[in-house]
Amino acid sequence: MMEKRRLAMRVAYHGGDFSGFQRQPSQPSVQGALESAWRGVSGEEVVVHGSGRTDSGVHSYGQVIHFDTHSNLEIGQVGQAINAHLPNSVSVRGVCQAPADFHSRFHAIGKRYVYLLATGPHKPVLRAGLVAWDRCHYLRLEQMRSAAQYLVGEKDFGSFAGAGKSTKTSVRTMTSIHLKPMRGGIMFCFQANGFLFRMARIMVGTLLEVGKGRRAPEWVEAVLGEKDRTKAGPTAAAEGLYLWKSLYPPGLLSFP
Amino acid sequence: MMEKRRLAMRVAYHGGDFSGFQRQPSQPSVQGALESAWRGVSGEEVVVHGSGRTDSGVHSYGQVIHFDTHSNLEIGQVGQAINAHLPNSVSVRGVCQAPADFHSRFHAIGKRYVYLLATGPHKPVLRAGLVAWDRCHYLRLEQMRSAAQYLVGEKDFGSFAGAGKSTKTSVRTMTSIHLKPMRGGIMFCFQANGFLFRMARIMVGTLLEVGKGRRAPEWVEAVLGEKDRTKAGPTAAAEGLYLWKSLYPPGLLSFP
Repeated sequence: MMEKRRLAMRVAYHGGDFSGFQRQPSQPSVQGALESAWRGVSGEEVVVHGSGRTDSGVHSYGQVIHFDTHSNLEIGQVGQAINAHLPNSVSVRGVCQAPADFHSRFHAIGKRYVYLLATGPHKPVLRAGLVAWDRCHYLRLEQMRSAAQYLVGEKDFGSFAGAGKSTKTSVRTMTSIHLKPMRGGIMFCFQANGFLFRMARIMVGTLLEVGKGRRAPEWVEAVLGEKDRTKAGPTAAAEGLYLWKSLYPPGLLSFP
Repeated sequence: MMEKRRLAMRVAYHGGDFSGFQRQPSQPSVQGALESAWRGVSGEEVVVHGSGRTDSGVHSYGQVIHFDTHSNLEIGQVGQAINAHLPNSVSVRGVCQAPADFHSRFHAIGKRYVYLLATGPHKPVLRAGLVAWDRCHYLRLEQMRSAAQYLVGEKDFGSFAGAGKSTKTSVRTMTSIHLKPMRGGIMFCFQANGFLFRMARIMVGTLLEVGKGRRAPEWVEAVLGEKDRTKAGPTAAAEGLYLWKSLYPPGLLSFP
């Protein structure tokens, strides 16, 4: 038997095909799909750990996962082998060997989320399921950008946390928020040292209240101060959200 | 009864959900979906004419269609009305009243097709069905561009026409071919006064022979001279192709 190795992988998936990242009885999950694919490759029963548990419908471009294996498959062949056993909606984009004590969740120093919103008058058929759609013909981009700046820095994001998951603290450090116009809509990019449950989607829903002119940018500062979920805007649809990148200390992982 | 009006519409659709544009018995078609949606709006039985009959699996961003109606619905409300009756994979992007003798096919002076090809090592899960995928790690872009220039101008494209559809002549004028690198792949843009059956996909398949280094750019000139489909490259997959725009003489249509 080969010595145990810890493998880390970058995984993209289409969230629409899964009830979320986390394994659940009789529901398709990304974790379950990866574990089952690895069983197909090696016959091993492994437990896959992810950097974050994306919600049902949320996509990933750069989720990082890890698990231990005794397989003697060469590292350069692992990606193609596991992809051959994965459904069409999941793809391993990169594989590397990780330190024996590496943990995709606990060693992550930050994450980047991207939210794609189509805002045109007609539903985006060519990107159906890949972008959210809100028929708001005009968004006040500069006002949304002003509002977003209140959310940058070390803040208590209690007003931006969905119910149902408890964490020790709701303080997170938002490194940056960028809003970029894209063809037929707008792209939101959030980077923080961590995100609370549904935080990215609640931030989008809240910034859109400003974008639609229902609230002034300063309202977002007031919402932050309340630490009360009911004061923020609605939770934006899952289909627009991508876990874009999980960030680790330089040198810890060496994806090709 | 309202006087008869001819309406023109720009229609986007996801080709994966249809057996093609043209109505066919017991198969889902874009034409059938539009006719059925208009029945839902107005109760009228109409015949929808398109600028081109896209093949099974081919997408559209800018297909133009027309039909006649006696409905008195205001032009500004037609788009939303028909969209409410269309499946999620078809969307009317614009509506205008056309001259009584306008024909979406016969008045078209050209078309633009776009082909999206992902070339990375892993299947593109987030754009599955929206891009073709060829695991060719490296494409010789400059050589493909040189090869493409042999196809620009007034040429006999007999070597680039799929079997099964006859036309009076296989001479067409290719206005431009542009190859642009895109994230994880390459985008082909073709503009011509008309395209033969499967012509865009055969051109892509042929240029890829050059891109992969199997043929020199000059080979494409030789293929053109043969006027024989068997001399060209394979037909590239439908899922990468978009009818991007149907072109008309300036002033003929006035989409909003």
